[in-house]
Amino acid sequence: MGEDDEILAANAAYYRAFAGGDFAAMSRIWAPDQVSCVHPGWPVLVGRAAVLESWQGILGNLGPERIVFHEATAMVAGDEGRVLCIEVIGTVAFAASNWFRRIDGIWRMIHHHASPIALQVDDDAPEPRSRRLN
Amino acid sequence: MGEDDEILAANAAYYRAFAGGDFAAMSRIWAPDQVSCVHPGWPVLVGRAAVLESWQGILGNLGPERIVFHEATAMVAGDEGRVLCIEVIGTVAFAASNWFRRIDGIWRMIHHHASPIALQVDDDAPEPRSRRLN
Repeated sequence: MGEDDEILAANAAYYRAFAGGDFAAMSRIWAPDQVSCVHPGWPVLVGRAAVLESWQGILGNLGPERIVFHEATAMVAGDEGRVLCIEVIGTVAFAASNWFRRIDGIWRMIHHHASPIALQVDDDAPEPRSRRLN
Repeated sequence: MGEDDEILAANAAYYRAFAGGDFAAMSRIWAPDQVSCVHPGWPVLVGRAAVLESWQGILGNLGPERIVFHEATAMVAGDEGRVLCIEVIGTVAFAASNWFRRIDGIWRMIHHHASPIALQVDDDAPEPRSRRLN
């Protein structure tokens, strides 16, 4: 599995934890330190405690909307990398920047920023697909 | 000048270029490759050409609003780092994630993501201030 595949797999695991409301998995995905997060419309959250507290609230209050991602683009440089994608919650689309750091061989999330974009999404859209940037 | 000071200075230079409508400076600030950008409400832009084209349009159409930033927090790990801050355009506030990479000793921007936040800002707010996270 190449570097891009590994970070794309970490990104997919993040969305599985999100969509499944799995706080334990989400907690494992986030790195132990130097983490930050900007949810749509929220101010900047800095530090693992603040970020995980936000996720505990979000995952504990998930609605019935389907959560998927599309058009993932990976960029890796050494032990840091990002995945840019479109995340879709129900029919609302967000641009997402997901940053990861390789710690002890495992890509852990260090930053997430999502913001609404003007894109109407068909609920019957095809399954998520990935694209690599070489 | 410590690492945090250096990346905070790069972040300040980015906002000077933005506020001053200085496309040449903005062009120098962005790294030669592996760049991406999400403007408020925009989809993900990937690649230097797409990102600089967007800035050419934005800087060529700046309104009279004052552009400042507040509460900059730096996190550096090796030759990559981020500055999280609140950017304010007129009376509208945005959460900004600004990522930099040290290339030949100079911190160059590799990613910018800004999204509106629910914060009313007084036009007479004090000058930008910075905060370091150690």
